[in-house]
Amino acid sequence: MSQPLTLSSAVVQEAEDDSSPKPSLFDYHSIDQKLLQNIVYDSLVWSTLNCLLVGDKSVQRSGTVPGVGLVHLPLSLLPGPFPESHWKQACELAPIFNELVDRVSLDGQFLQESLSRTKKADEFTSRLLDIHAKMLQINKKEDIRMGIVRSDYMIDEKTKSLLQIEMNTISTSFALIGCLMTGLHRSLLSQYGKFLGLDSNRVPANNAVDQSAEALAKAWSEFNNPRAAILVVVQVEERNMDGQAISIVYFRAGYTPKDYPSESVSYMNSEWRARLMMEQSSAIKCPTISYHLVGTKKVQQELAKPGVLERTPFIRESGKAWDHGDFDETVEGLGSGVISYSSLWSLEDSDIVKKAIESPELFVMKPQREGGGNNIYGDDLRKTLLKLQEAGSEEDAAYILMQRIFPATYPAILVRDGNWNTGHVIAEAGIFGTYLRNKDKIIINNESGYMVRTKVSTSYEGGVLPGFGVVDTVYLT
Amino acid sequence: MSQPLTLSSAVVQEAEDDSSPKPSLFDYHSIDQKLLQNIVYDSLVWSTLNCLLVGDKSVQRSGTVPGVGLVHLPLSLLPGPFPESHWKQACELAPIFNELVDRVSLDGQFLQESLSRTKKADEFTSRLLDIHAKMLQINKKEDIRMGIVRSDYMIDEKTKSLLQIEMNTISTSFALIGCLMTGLHRSLLSQYGKFLGLDSNRVPANNAVDQSAEALAKAWSEFNNPRAAILVVVQVEERNMDGQAISIVYFRAGYTPKDYPSESVSYMNSEWRARLMMEQSSAIKCPTISYHLVGTKKVQQELAKPGVLERTPFIRESGKAWDHGDFDETVEGLGSGVISYSSLWSLEDSDIVKKAIESPELFVMKPQREGGGNNIYGDDLRKTLLKLQEAGSEEDAAYILMQRIFPATYPAILVRDGNWNTGHVIAEAGIFGTYLRNKDKIIINNESGYMVRTKVSTSYEGGVLPGFGVVDTVYLT
Repeated sequence: MSQPLTLSSAVVQEAEDDSSPKPSLFDYHSIDQKLLQNIVYDSLVWSTLNCLLVGDKSVQRSGTVPGVGLVHLPLSLLPGPFPESHWKQACELAPIFNELVDRVSLDGQFLQESLSRTKKADEFTSRLLDIHAKMLQINKKEDIRMGIVRSDYMIDEKTKSLLQIEMNTISTSFALIGCLMTGLHRSLLSQYGKFLGLDSNRVPANNAVDQSAEALAKAWSEFNNPRAAILVVVQVEERNMDGQAISIVYFRAGYTPKDYPSESVSYMNSEWRARLMMEQSSAIKCPTISYHLVGTKKVQQELAKPGVLERTPFIRESGKAWDHGDFDETVEGLGSGVISYSSLWSLEDSDIVKKAIESPELFVMKPQREGGGNNIYGDDLRKTLLKLQEAGSEEDAAYILMQRIFPATYPAILVRDGNWNTGHVIAEAGIFGTYLRNKDKIIINNESGYMVRTKVSTSYEGGVLPGFGVVDTVYLT
Repeated sequence: MSQPLTLSSAVVQEAEDDSSPKPSLFDYHSIDQKLLQNIVYDSLVWSTLNCLLVGDKSVQRSGTVPGVGLVHLPLSLLPGPFPESHWKQACELAPIFNELVDRVSLDGQFLQESLSRTKKADEFTSRLLDIHAKMLQINKKEDIRMGIVRSDYMIDEKTKSLLQIEMNTISTSFALIGCLMTGLHRSLLSQYGKFLGLDSNRVPANNAVDQSAEALAKAWSEFNNPRAAILVVVQVEERNMDGQAISIVYFRAGYTPKDYPSESVSYMNSEWRARLMMEQSSAIKCPTISYHLVGTKKVQQELAKPGVLERTPFIRESGKAWDHGDFDETVEGLGSGVISYSSLWSLEDSDIVKKAIESPELFVMKPQREGGGNNIYGDDLRKTLLKLQEAGSEEDAAYILMQRIFPATYPAILVRDGNWNTGHVIAEAGIFGTYLRNKDKIIINNESGYMVRTKVSTSYEGGVLPGFGVVDTVYLT
């Protein structure tokens, strides 16, 4: 008679032995090193199979030729802890912020006034405002409006409160990476969670990619021209402009002066002229020039001023029914600081400027445009403020001041270039929202997913983290 | 009023202009170079997104650390032409060959006799036969038998006939790569087929991966122990052998002497002892030792002898009903050369040996074990035959002689390391079959998918192609 064939290993026995010691939550020191190596190995295999890959900078052609010099994305091996109540709060706010962006975008005068001083100091914002002004002049109406936005949050360690860092309304990235990371962490915890005392279901589901695609598809349907294409504006020269109808212009680029390089040659052929043409057209813009302007830090700083959120028409539009019955109350809550943009100030506010010169460690100074990495901290912040005061020009309007947040840190295992290291990191969690309306009909307004970026805390300088290099997800606690 | 936004490009216009010249089938010289570059670019992007990737040998750690040093698989940009009638024939033969493998595997005496001379000349085959003999001795019955097999074919240019090169019964690889390539070519033709005069539906569907997984899953069900695992034997030392029940042993390794390295140290701990233990166990083996032996070239050469296929019990088993009613007739057809293993001969056949010494260019000499790359051609073949004749030993039993096939060539665009080149290639198409039975009940017996390997014909030496480097699919003509 044949004997049954059997197999065991340390891992299998550990799984069946419930009395074996479990590491306490996120205490990677107590994880068996052999087990840890298996998890790292599997994370690398998963990343390869699921295209969680980037071009390896050390390989010469990796940036220009696809399919060569690929390496897994730098990643955090396990999800970072995040209080469930704060997570719920952030998710519930997504549709509120979607709606807020839309309402603010309709108030052309507010946008022009908020950015009037910035216009003088910043050529790029000035160009955007010119296009916006032209649309106001011709009374351009956008019946179909769609937003793919992302609000970024940190948890302040001292107050344990959820603070919004910023809201992104153009070229909101990391949706795909966020979804892939969720897939990786859920997969790892499904297999190894029992040894780590972690449950894969505590990593929230993530639909950011599917929901973004659905929003584009539904917007295309609303446009109601089966022959119309979707134009994706990317950071490579592409200027073919007649023949094929366009239903949606999706801006994956256009948020930085670098994306408008040819103006010096000829305005007639410039990217600014193309942007104006797109804005004038009947195509759906994701985002419109107005949505784009709402995403400037200056406008967000204005919105954080007492009383601004409460002004007509952001929260009270008489005689109109809104899908969110509690929207007014919620926004009033935002304004009164229950949850808010972490405190933001204009450099016109001389009291705050004085305070920042005295205690620069409590502030971050940011250019009001999109794209992080240009923040000013510490002694540089003090010197820059003094220089701006001395010059007495309008240049200060290109910046805002922001309360510096000191987020909680957590231990993490960081995997980069096939190697792993441990360290304490801070994280910024971004919640995606998608929005689509046609006139009074709201077709989509939801929270769609998330992404988390971490950075080793020792090199952290505060505010929006420059050069985030490692992605993560959250584990609800 | 807003104007519609429109876009065109040379590509879009070409699509709508039906009068534009289309390149004739597979004549890549007539393909617009800009279009070709776009197709190559998209093939590289698709490969990255869908994990059609391998480790780049030029990156040091790529072979040992997953997720680093990845590069797209060398690939043929477009499918190669293949006559539809031959393709159908090859696909229809898959379940016939599945069944044939199973029936031959049941004739222990035939396997031992066919390989009796080889046993003396080849230590590896001798080991396999020892295990097989032990199973015959204890009258070991395998009620549940499963096969994942692959038959490889070429089309002979002169006769335009489909010729089977060999049949693989252990560790049949390239199922995943075959499916991915089908996905790539169908995707490229969906997008660019109209410019090339090619229809993506002419690239046959490919389910090799799903069907293999399904066969494993169904075999696991038949084993009927919900706690039993599937053991995959791979080419790394793994020897943990008590505790967890095993339902299926899948051999991804074990087909070459290199996979049994430790015998010289101690037989008690050797891989051969593990193989024997697996074979003795009640676990389902994919393949059994008998299936493995059926896959040897010597047995296939014996099967190609006139009258052998017709012997009991391969085609006539009195009083039994078979799922394939026309099986007997088909196998008789195989035997009479309508389609057959391309002519195979033992080195005992002195007439053929004489002929091969006189005209070595018409023959290929092959070791009868698995794993290509060791074939002997031309003057080397003549010298080896003369040496063997002189020695007069049993060493000639380790080889078979095979009619050298001269397959048709076709023009191809070969993409490697992000660059592309053109050239004429020859191709070998492999048709996968999966098979599962439990006693008299056939649960699965199908053709499941395919893979195509090509090689630039200028370096082609005939027979099984050494060092296939570029994968392809077929385009039915």
